[in-house]
Amino acid sequence: MKIIIIGATGTIGKHVVSALEKDNEILKVGSKSGDMQVDITNPDSIKNLFEQAGPFDALISTTGDGHFGPLPKMTDADFRIGLNSKLMGQVNLVLIGQHYINPKGSFTLTSGSLADDPIVLGASVSTINGALDSFVRAAAIELEQGVRINTVAPGVVEESPGYFPFFPGHIPVSMHRVAQAYVKSVLGAQTGQTYKVV
Amino acid sequence: MKIIIIGATGTIGKHVVSALEKDNEILKVGSKSGDMQVDITNPDSIKNLFEQAGPFDALISTTGDGHFGPLPKMTDADFRIGLNSKLMGQVNLVLIGQHYINPKGSFTLTSGSLADDPIVLGASVSTINGALDSFVRAAAIELEQGVRINTVAPGVVEESPGYFPFFPGHIPVSMHRVAQAYVKSVLGAQTGQTYKVV
Ligand SMILES: NC(=O)c1ccc[n+]([C@@H]2O[C@H](COP(=O)([O-])OP(=O)(O)OC[C@H]3O[C@@H](n4cnc5c(N)ncnc54)[C@H](OP(=O)(O)O)[C@@H]3O)[C@@H](O)[C@H]2O)c1
Ligand SMILES: NC(=O)c1ccc[n+]([C@@H]2O[C@H](COP(=O)([O-])OP(=O)(O)OC[C@H]3O[C@@H](n4cnc5c(N)ncnc54)[C@H](OP(=O)(O)O)[C@@H]3O)[C@@H](O)[C@H]2O)c1
Repeated sequence: MKIIIIGATGTIGKHVVSALEKDNEILKVGSKSGDMQVDITNPDSIKNLFEQAGPFDALISTTGDGHFGPLPKMTDADFRIGLNSKLMGQVNLVLIGQHYINPKGSFTLTSGSLADDPIVLGASVSTINGALDSFVRAAAIELEQGVRINTVAPGVVEESPGYFPFFPGHIPVSMHRVAQAYVKSVLGAQTGQTYKVV
Repeated sequence: MKIIIIGATGTIGKHVVSALEKDNEILKVGSKSGDMQVDITNPDSIKNLFEQAGPFDALISTTGDGHFGPLPKMTDADFRIGLNSKLMGQVNLVLIGQHYINPKGSFTLTSGSLADDPIVLGASVSTINGALDSFVRAAAIELEQGVRINTVAPGVVEESPGYFPFFPGHIPVSMHRVAQAYVKSVLGAQTGQTYKVV
Protein backbone atom coordinates (compact mmCIF):
# COMPACT_ATOMS: atom_id res chain seq x y z
CA MET A 1 0.00 0.00 0.00
CA LYS A 2 1.29 3.50 -0.77
CA ILE A 3 0.71 5.79 2.22
CA ILE A 4 1.34 9.55 2.34
CA ILE A 5 1.99 10.77 5.90
CA ILE A 6 1.83 14.55 6.38
CA GLY A 7 3.64 15.44 9.60
CA ALA A 8 5.72 12.24 9.35
CA THR A 9 8.65 13.74 11.27
CA GLY A 10 6.58 15.00 14.21
CA THR A 11 6.11 13.62 17.71
CA ILE A 12 3.11 11.51 16.68
CA GLY A 13 3.95 11.12 12.99
CA LYS A 14 7.27 9.35 13.50
CA HIS A 15 5.56 6.61 15.53
CA VAL A 16 2.91 6.21 12.84
CA VAL A 17 5.69 5.82 10.28
CA SER A 18 7.36 3.13 12.44
CA ALA A 19 4.10 1.23 12.81
CA LEU A 20 3.41 1.14 9.07
CA GLU A 21 6.76 1.26 7.23
CA LYS A 22 7.58 -2.45 7.36
CA ASP A 23 4.72 -3.53 5.11
CA ASN A 24 3.97 -0.38 3.10
CA GLU A 25 5.54 2.24 0.88
CA ILE A 26 5.57 5.44 2.97
CA LEU A 27 5.92 8.95 1.56
CA LYS A 28 7.04 11.15 4.47
CA VAL A 29 5.94 14.78 4.17
CA GLY A 30 6.58 17.89 6.29
CA SER A 31 6.78 21.60 5.64
CA LYS A 32 10.58 21.51 5.84
CA SER A 33 11.43 17.86 6.59
CA GLY A 34 10.62 14.54 4.92
CA ASP A 35 10.77 13.10 1.38
CA MET A 36 8.50 15.82 0.02
CA GLN A 37 7.29 19.20 1.31
CA VAL A 38 3.86 20.80 1.55
CA ASP A 39 2.41 23.76 3.39
CA ILE A 40 -1.05 22.55 4.43
CA THR A 41 -2.22 26.17 4.96
CA ASN A 42 -1.90 26.72 1.19
CA PRO A 43 -4.32 24.85 -1.14
CA ASP A 44 -2.00 25.38 -4.15
CA SER A 45 0.84 23.73 -2.25
CA ILE A 46 -1.46 20.78 -1.44
CA LYS A 47 -2.48 20.40 -5.08
CA ASN A 48 1.17 20.50 -6.09
CA LEU A 49 1.98 17.74 -3.56
CA PHE A 50 -0.66 15.41 -5.02
CA GLU A 51 0.47 16.15 -8.59
CA GLN A 52 4.03 15.20 -7.62
CA ALA A 53 3.19 12.24 -5.39
CA GLY A 54 0.98 10.35 -7.85
CA PRO A 55 -1.89 8.01 -6.91
CA PHE A 56 -1.91 6.67 -3.35
CA ASP A 57 -3.95 4.34 -1.17
CA ALA A 58 -3.97 6.15 2.16
CA LEU A 59 -3.28 9.62 3.45
CA ILE A 60 -2.53 10.17 7.14
CA SER A 61 -2.26 13.67 8.56
CA THR A 62 -0.51 14.11 11.91
CA THR A 63 -0.07 17.85 11.69
CA GLY A 64 -1.83 21.15 12.25
CA ASP A 65 -1.24 24.19 14.45
CA GLY A 66 -3.71 25.87 16.77
CA HIS A 67 -3.65 28.72 19.28
CA PHE A 68 -3.58 28.11 23.04
CA GLY A 69 -4.43 31.10 25.21
CA PRO A 70 -6.93 32.53 27.70
CA LEU A 71 -10.48 33.01 26.44
CA PRO A 72 -10.75 36.53 27.94
CA LYS A 73 -7.89 37.66 25.68
CA MET A 74 -8.70 35.55 22.63
CA THR A 75 -9.26 37.36 19.33
CA ASP A 76 -10.54 36.52 15.88
CA ALA A 77 -6.90 36.51 14.66
CA ASP A 78 -5.87 33.99 17.34
CA PHE A 79 -8.73 31.72 16.31
CA ARG A 80 -7.83 31.94 12.62
CA ILE A 81 -4.42 30.28 13.27
CA GLY A 82 -6.08 26.94 13.95
CA LEU A 83 -8.84 27.44 11.36
CA ASN A 84 -6.22 27.99 8.66
CA SER A 85 -3.82 25.26 9.77
CA LYS A 86 -5.24 22.34 11.77
CA LEU A 87 -8.82 22.66 10.42
CA MET A 88 -8.69 23.88 6.80
CA GLY A 89 -5.22 22.41 6.25
CA GLN A 90 -6.59 18.94 6.97
CA VAL A 91 -9.99 19.58 5.32
CA ASN A 92 -8.20 20.74 2.16
CA LEU A 93 -6.04 17.59 2.16
CA VAL A 94 -9.38 15.75 1.74
CA LEU A 95 -11.20 18.19 -0.58
CA ILE A 96 -8.23 18.16 -2.95
CA GLY A 97 -6.94 14.66 -2.20
CA GLN A 98 -10.30 13.00 -3.01
CA HIS A 99 -9.48 13.64 -6.68
CA TYR A 100 -6.12 11.82 -6.45
CA ILE A 101 -6.70 8.92 -4.02
CA ASN A 102 -7.15 5.36 -5.32
CA PRO A 103 -10.56 3.62 -5.04
CA LYS A 104 -11.05 2.08 -1.58
CA GLY A 105 -8.36 4.41 -0.20
CA SER A 106 -8.57 6.14 3.17
CA PHE A 107 -7.97 9.49 4.83
CA THR A 108 -7.01 9.62 8.51
CA LEU A 109 -6.90 13.05 10.13
CA THR A 110 -5.85 14.10 13.63
CA SER A 111 -8.24 15.90 16.00
CA GLY A 112 -7.80 15.44 19.78
CA SER A 113 -9.48 14.82 23.11
CA LEU A 114 -10.07 18.56 23.70
CA ALA A 115 -13.17 18.33 21.48
CA ASP A 116 -15.02 16.72 24.40
CA ASP A 117 -12.71 17.19 27.37
CA PRO A 118 -11.65 20.86 27.45
CA ILE A 119 -8.81 22.50 29.35
CA VAL A 120 -8.22 26.11 30.34
CA LEU A 121 -6.51 27.94 27.41
CA GLY A 122 -7.80 25.38 24.91
CA ALA A 123 -11.05 26.85 23.56
CA SER A 124 -9.76 27.41 20.04
CA VAL A 125 -8.20 23.95 19.74
CA SER A 126 -11.33 22.30 21.20
CA THR A 127 -13.38 24.05 18.52
CA ILE A 128 -11.13 22.80 15.74
CA ASN A 129 -11.04 19.24 17.06
CA GLY A 130 -14.85 19.13 17.26
CA ALA A 131 -15.05 20.50 13.73
CA LEU A 132 -12.75 17.75 12.42
CA ASP A 133 -14.71 14.96 14.13
CA SER A 134 -17.96 16.23 12.58
CA PHE A 135 -16.27 16.73 9.21
CA VAL A 136 -15.26 13.06 8.95
CA ARG A 137 -18.73 11.87 10.01
CA ALA A 138 -20.22 13.93 7.18
CA ALA A 139 -17.53 13.40 4.52
CA ALA A 140 -17.76 9.62 5.07
CA ILE A 141 -21.25 9.51 3.53
CA GLU A 142 -20.18 11.43 0.39
CA LEU A 143 -16.71 10.14 -0.50
CA GLU A 144 -16.91 8.08 -3.69
CA GLN A 145 -15.48 4.73 -4.87
CA GLY A 146 -15.32 3.24 -1.39
CA VAL A 147 -12.94 5.85 -0.02
CA ARG A 148 -13.04 6.01 3.79
CA ILE A 149 -12.23 8.72 6.35
CA ASN A 150 -11.69 8.80 10.14
CA THR A 151 -10.08 10.97 12.79
CA VAL A 152 -7.74 9.89 15.56
CA ALA A 153 -8.36 11.95 18.72
CA PRO A 154 -5.45 11.50 21.12
CA GLY A 155 -5.23 12.83 24.63
CA VAL A 156 -1.93 14.51 25.53
CA VAL A 157 0.80 12.06 24.49
CA GLU A 158 3.60 10.73 26.70
CA GLU A 159 6.28 12.31 24.49
CA SER A 160 4.94 15.87 24.87
CA PRO A 161 5.88 16.64 28.49
CA GLY A 162 5.81 20.38 27.77
CA TYR A 163 1.99 20.13 27.62
CA PHE A 164 1.56 18.18 30.91
CA PRO A 165 1.17 21.28 33.19
CA PHE A 166 -1.80 22.38 31.08
CA PHE A 167 -3.50 18.96 31.36
CA PRO A 168 -3.85 18.43 35.13
CA GLY A 169 -5.07 14.93 35.95
CA HIS A 170 -4.95 13.78 32.33
CA ILE A 171 -3.04 10.50 31.98
CA PRO A 172 -0.61 10.91 29.05
CA VAL A 173 -1.32 8.29 26.40
CA SER A 174 1.30 5.87 25.13
CA MET A 175 2.74 6.38 21.66
CA HIS A 176 2.01 2.71 20.94
CA ARG A 177 -1.72 3.14 21.53
CA VAL A 178 -1.79 6.35 19.49
CA ALA A 179 0.09 4.84 16.54
CA GLN A 180 -2.17 1.77 16.56
CA ALA A 181 -5.26 3.97 16.17
CA TYR A 182 -3.88 5.18 12.82
CA VAL A 183 -3.14 1.55 11.86
CA LYS A 184 -6.74 0.63 12.74
CA SER A 185 -8.05 3.43 10.54
CA VAL A 186 -5.85 2.57 7.54
CA LEU A 187 -5.98 -1.25 7.65
CA GLY A 188 -9.51 -1.59 9.06
CA ALA A 189 -12.73 -1.03 7.14
CA GLN A 190 -14.62 1.52 9.24
CA THR A 191 -15.47 5.05 8.09
CA GLY A 192 -16.81 8.23 9.65
CA GLN A 193 -15.32 7.25 13.02
CA THR A 194 -13.36 9.11 15.68
CA TYR A 195 -10.85 6.87 17.42
CA LYS A 196 -10.39 8.41 20.85
CA VAL A 197 -7.07 7.45 22.43
CA VAL A 198 -7.28 8.44 26.09
CA MET B 1 -33.73 40.72 31.94
CA LYS B 2 -32.26 42.49 28.90
CA ILE B 3 -31.78 40.01 26.04
CA ILE B 4 -30.07 40.71 22.71
CA ILE B 5 -31.29 38.38 19.96
CA ILE B 6 -29.16 38.32 16.78
CA GLY B 7 -31.26 36.90 13.95
CA ALA B 8 -34.47 37.95 15.74
CA THR B 9 -36.43 38.29 12.49
CA GLY B 10 -35.49 34.87 11.12
CA THR B 11 -37.44 31.61 10.96
CA ILE B 12 -36.17 30.45 14.35
CA GLY B 13 -35.43 33.86 15.86
CA LYS B 14 -38.98 35.18 15.67
CA HIS B 15 -40.26 32.23 17.73
CA VAL B 16 -37.52 32.80 20.31
CA VAL B 17 -38.60 36.45 20.52
CA SER B 18 -42.23 35.38 21.06
CA ALA B 19 -41.25 32.96 23.81
CA LEU B 20 -39.25 35.56 25.75
CA GLU B 21 -40.72 39.01 25.01
CA LYS B 22 -43.52 38.98 27.59
CA ASP B 23 -41.23 38.98 30.62
CA ASN B 24 -38.03 40.51 29.24
CA GLU B 25 -36.63 43.51 27.41
CA ILE B 26 -35.67 42.21 23.96
CA LEU B 27 -33.27 43.96 21.59
CA LYS B 28 -33.97 42.53 18.14
CA VAL B 29 -30.96 42.53 15.80
CA GLY B 30 -30.48 41.56 12.15
CA SER B 31 -28.15 42.63 9.35
CA LYS B 32 -30.93 44.68 7.75
CA SER B 33 -33.97 44.14 10.00
CA GLY B 34 -34.66 44.65 13.71
CA ASP B 35 -34.11 47.41 16.29
CA MET B 36 -30.38 47.47 15.64
CA GLN B 37 -28.10 46.11 12.90
CA VAL B 38 -24.90 44.10 12.94
CA ASP B 39 -22.92 42.11 10.41
CA ILE B 40 -21.67 39.11 12.40
CA THR B 41 -18.98 38.43 9.76
CA ASN B 42 -17.28 41.71 10.76
CA PRO B 43 -15.70 41.95 14.26
CA ASP B 44 -15.75 45.78 14.13
CA SER B 45 -19.48 45.72 13.47
CA ILE B 46 -19.96 43.39 16.47
CA LYS B 47 -17.94 45.68 18.73
CA ASN B 48 -19.99 48.63 17.54
CA LEU B 49 -23.23 46.76 18.34
CA PHE B 50 -22.16 46.12 21.95
CA GLU B 51 -21.00 49.74 22.38
CA GLN B 52 -24.42 50.92 21.22
CA ALA B 53 -26.52 48.31 23.02
CA GLY B 54 -25.06 48.78 26.50
CA PRO B 55 -24.84 46.08 29.19
CA PHE B 56 -27.10 43.06 28.78
CA ASP B 57 -27.98 39.84 30.59
CA ALA B 58 -28.30 37.36 27.74
CA LEU B 59 -27.29 37.12 24.13
CA ILE B 60 -29.03 34.67 21.82
CA SER B 61 -27.77 34.08 18.29
CA THR B 62 -30.13 32.46 15.78
CA THR B 63 -28.16 33.34 12.69
CA GLY B 64 -25.24 32.23 10.53
CA ASP B 65 -24.82 31.14 6.93
CA GLY B 66 -23.10 28.02 5.65
CA HIS B 67 -22.52 26.37 2.29
CA PHE B 68 -24.51 23.33 1.16
CA GLY B 69 -23.10 21.42 -1.81
CA PRO B 70 -21.58 18.13 -2.94
CA LEU B 71 -18.29 17.12 -1.31
CA PRO B 72 -16.69 16.15 -4.65
CA LYS B 73 -17.07 19.77 -5.80
CA MET B 74 -16.45 21.52 -2.48
CA THR B 75 -13.61 24.04 -2.32
CA ASP B 76 -11.75 25.97 0.36
CA ALA B 77 -13.76 29.07 -0.65
CA ASP B 78 -17.09 27.23 -0.19
CA PHE B 79 -15.99 26.13 3.26
CA ARG B 80 -14.93 29.65 4.27
CA ILE B 81 -18.53 30.92 3.88
CA GLY B 82 -19.63 29.03 6.98
CA LEU B 83 -16.34 29.55 8.82
CA ASN B 84 -16.68 33.32 8.42
CA SER B 85 -20.41 33.51 9.12
CA LYS B 86 -21.98 30.76 11.23
CA LEU B 87 -18.75 29.77 13.04
CA MET B 88 -16.59 32.89 13.54
CA GLY B 89 -19.62 35.20 13.50
CA GLN B 90 -21.00 33.42 16.55
CA VAL B 91 -17.58 32.83 18.17
CA ASN B 92 -16.82 36.55 17.82
CA LEU B 93 -20.16 37.45 19.44
CA VAL B 94 -18.75 35.63 22.49
CA LEU B 95 -15.07 36.71 22.27
CA ILE B 96 -16.16 40.35 22.06
CA GLY B 97 -19.42 40.11 24.01
CA GLN B 98 -17.71 38.59 27.09
CA HIS B 99 -16.35 42.10 27.79
CA TYR B 100 -19.86 43.67 27.73
CA ILE B 101 -22.18 41.04 29.27
CA ASN B 102 -23.41 41.42 32.86
CA PRO B 103 -22.18 39.00 35.58
CA LYS B 104 -24.20 35.77 35.57
CA GLY B 105 -25.26 36.48 32.00
CA SER B 106 -25.53 33.86 29.27
CA PHE B 107 -24.69 33.26 25.63
CA THR B 108 -26.82 30.87 23.57
CA LEU B 109 -25.58 30.03 20.08
CA THR B 110 -27.17 27.94 17.32
CA SER B 111 -25.46 24.86 15.88
CA GLY B 112 -27.63 22.03 14.48
CA SER B 113 -28.22 18.30 14.28
CA LEU B 114 -25.88 17.90 11.29
CA ALA B 115 -22.93 17.85 13.70
CA ASP B 116 -23.83 14.24 14.55
CA ASP B 117 -26.40 13.26 11.95
CA PRO B 118 -25.01 14.23 8.53
CA ILE B 119 -26.83 14.54 5.21
CA VAL B 120 -25.54 14.51 1.65
CA LEU B 121 -24.43 18.06 0.69
CA GLY B 122 -23.98 19.03 4.34
CA ALA B 123 -20.28 18.39 5.09
CA SER B 124 -19.37 22.04 5.59
CA VAL B 125 -22.35 22.79 7.83
CA SER B 126 -21.77 19.59 9.85
CA THR B 127 -18.19 20.74 10.44
CA ILE B 128 -19.30 24.16 11.67
CA ASN B 129 -22.00 22.74 13.94
CA GLY B 130 -19.52 20.34 15.54
CA ALA B 131 -17.09 23.23 16.00
CA LEU B 132 -19.73 25.30 17.81
CA ASP B 133 -20.73 22.47 20.15
CA SER B 134 -17.08 21.95 21.16
CA PHE B 135 -16.54 25.71 21.46
CA VAL B 136 -19.27 26.10 24.09
CA ARG B 137 -18.02 23.08 26.06
CA ALA B 138 -14.58 24.72 26.23
CA ALA B 139 -15.65 28.36 26.65
CA ALA B 140 -17.92 27.36 29.55
CA ILE B 141 -14.91 26.54 31.75
CA GLU B 142 -13.22 29.91 31.09
CA LEU B 143 -16.01 32.49 31.03
CA GLU B 144 -15.72 34.72 34.11
CA GLN B 145 -18.19 36.11 36.69
CA GLY B 146 -20.63 33.25 36.35
CA VAL B 147 -21.34 33.84 32.67
CA ARG B 148 -22.77 30.72 31.00
CA ILE B 149 -22.82 29.46 27.40
CA ASN B 150 -24.75 26.74 25.51
CA THR B 151 -25.71 25.79 21.98
CA VAL B 152 -29.13 24.82 20.69
CA ALA B 153 -28.83 22.14 17.97
CA PRO B 154 -32.12 21.88 16.09
CA GLY B 155 -32.99 19.34 13.45
CA VAL B 156 -34.65 20.72 10.34
CA VAL B 157 -37.54 22.89 11.58
CA GLU B 158 -41.18 22.60 10.54
CA GLU B 159 -41.20 26.13 9.08
CA SER B 160 -38.33 25.45 6.63
CA PRO B 161 -40.07 23.16 4.08
CA GLY B 162 -37.53 24.14 1.42
CA TYR B 163 -34.98 22.00 3.29
CA PHE B 164 -37.18 18.89 3.65
CA PRO B 165 -36.09 17.17 0.38
CA PHE B 166 -32.49 17.25 1.63
CA PHE B 167 -33.41 15.63 4.97
CA PRO B 168 -35.09 12.34 3.95
CA GLY B 169 -36.65 10.59 6.94
CA HIS B 170 -35.87 13.43 9.33
CA ILE B 171 -38.96 14.45 11.30
CA PRO B 172 -39.15 18.27 11.18
CA VAL B 173 -39.07 19.68 14.71
CA SER B 174 -41.77 21.96 16.08
CA MET B 175 -41.02 25.65 16.52
CA HIS B 176 -42.36 25.38 20.06
CA ARG B 177 -39.77 22.78 21.05
CA VAL B 178 -36.98 24.74 19.36
CA ALA B 179 -37.92 28.04 21.03
CA GLN B 180 -38.17 26.35 24.45
CA ALA B 181 -34.58 25.10 24.14
CA TYR B 182 -33.42 28.73 24.00
CA VAL B 183 -35.65 29.55 27.01
CA LYS B 184 -34.06 26.62 28.89
CA SER B 185 -30.58 27.94 28.12
CA VAL B 186 -31.35 31.53 29.15
CA LEU B 187 -33.55 30.93 32.22
CA GLY B 188 -31.89 27.70 33.38
CA ALA B 189 -28.52 27.42 35.11
CA GLN B 190 -26.60 24.93 32.97
CA THR B 191 -23.47 25.74 30.99
CA GLY B 192 -21.33 24.07 28.32
CA GLN B 193 -24.36 22.13 27.08
CA THR B 194 -25.74 21.34 23.64
CA TYR B 195 -29.52 21.16 23.64
CA LYS B 196 -30.39 18.85 20.77
CA VAL B 197 -33.93 19.42 19.48
CA VAL B 198 -34.75 16.47 17.23
N1 LIG C 1 1.37 16.11 20.99
C1 LIG C 1 0.21 15.85 21.63
O1 LIG C 1 0.16 15.59 22.86
C2 LIG C 1 -1.05 15.85 20.85
C3 LIG C 1 -2.25 15.40 21.46
C4 LIG C 1 -3.45 15.42 20.73
C5 LIG C 1 -3.44 15.87 19.43
N2 LIG C 1 -2.28 16.31 18.85
C6 LIG C 1 -2.33 16.77 17.47
O2 LIG C 1 -1.52 15.94 16.67
C7 LIG C 1 -0.97 16.70 15.59
C8 LIG C 1 0.54 16.51 15.58
O3 LIG C 1 1.05 16.88 16.85
P1 LIG C 1 2.59 16.65 17.21
O4 LIG C 1 2.73 16.95 18.66
O5 LIG C 1 3.04 15.32 16.67
O6 LIG C 1 3.26 17.85 16.34
P2 LIG C 1 4.80 18.15 16.03
O7 LIG C 1 5.71 17.27 16.82
O8 LIG C 1 4.97 19.63 16.13
O9 LIG C 1 4.96 17.70 14.48
C9 LIG C 1 4.35 18.44 13.47
C10 LIG C 1 4.61 17.77 12.12
O10 LIG C 1 3.89 18.51 11.12
C11 LIG C 1 4.80 19.04 10.14
N3 LIG C 1 4.31 20.39 9.77
C12 LIG C 1 4.32 21.52 10.52
N4 LIG C 1 3.75 22.54 9.86
C13 LIG C 1 3.34 22.03 8.67
C14 LIG C 1 2.68 22.60 7.54
N5 LIG C 1 2.30 23.89 7.49
N6 LIG C 1 2.44 21.79 6.47
C15 LIG C 1 2.81 20.49 6.50
N7 LIG C 1 3.43 19.90 7.54
C16 LIG C 1 3.70 20.67 8.61
C17 LIG C 1 6.17 19.04 10.82
O11 LIG C 1 7.23 18.88 9.89
P3 LIG C 1 8.17 20.16 9.51
O12 LIG C 1 8.97 20.48 10.74
O13 LIG C 1 8.99 19.67 8.34
O14 LIG C 1 7.24 21.25 9.12
C18 LIG C 1 6.07 17.78 11.70
O15 LIG C 1 6.34 16.63 10.92
C19 LIG C 1 -1.44 18.15 15.81
O16 LIG C 1 -2.62 18.35 15.05
C20 LIG C 1 -1.79 18.18 17.29
O17 LIG C 1 -2.79 19.15 17.58
C21 LIG C 1 -1.09 16.29 19.52
N1 LIG D 1 -34.10 26.48 9.58
C1 LIG D 1 -33.71 25.26 9.99
O1 LIG D 1 -34.33 24.22 9.71
C2 LIG D 1 -32.48 25.15 10.87
C3 LIG D 1 -32.17 23.91 11.48
C4 LIG D 1 -31.03 23.81 12.27
C5 LIG D 1 -30.22 24.90 12.45
N2 LIG D 1 -30.53 26.08 11.85
C6 LIG D 1 -29.63 27.23 12.08
O2 LIG D 1 -30.36 28.24 12.75
C7 LIG D 1 -29.84 29.52 12.36
C8 LIG D 1 -30.99 30.40 11.89
O3 LIG D 1 -31.65 29.72 10.83
P1 LIG D 1 -33.01 30.31 10.22
O4 LIG D 1 -33.55 29.27 9.31
O5 LIG D 1 -33.87 30.84 11.32
O6 LIG D 1 -32.41 31.52 9.34
P2 LIG D 1 -33.18 32.72 8.58
O7 LIG D 1 -34.65 32.50 8.57
O8 LIG D 1 -32.47 32.90 7.29
O9 LIG D 1 -32.89 34.00 9.53
C9 LIG D 1 -31.60 34.54 9.61
C10 LIG D 1 -31.61 35.70 10.59
O10 LIG D 1 -30.27 36.17 10.73
C11 LIG D 1 -30.18 37.54 10.34
N3 LIG D 1 -28.89 37.72 9.62
C12 LIG D 1 -28.55 37.24 8.39
N4 LIG D 1 -27.28 37.56 8.10
C13 LIG D 1 -26.79 38.23 9.17
C14 LIG D 1 -25.53 38.82 9.49
N5 LIG D 1 -24.49 38.77 8.62
N6 LIG D 1 -25.39 39.43 10.69
C15 LIG D 1 -26.43 39.47 11.57
N7 LIG D 1 -27.63 38.94 11.34
C16 LIG D 1 -27.81 38.33 10.14
C17 LIG D 1 -31.41 37.80 9.48
O11 LIG D 1 -31.82 39.16 9.55
P3 LIG D 1 -31.59 40.16 8.27
O12 LIG D 1 -32.47 39.66 7.19
O13 LIG D 1 -31.96 41.50 8.82
O14 LIG D 1 -30.12 40.03 7.98
C18 LIG D 1 -32.44 36.89 10.15
O15 LIG D 1 -32.97 37.54 11.30
C19 LIG D 1 -28.77 29.25 11.30
O16 LIG D 1 -27.52 29.19 11.95
C20 LIG D 1 -29.13 27.86 10.81
O17 LIG D 1 -27.98 27.13 10.32
C21 LIG D 1 -31.65 26.24 11.08
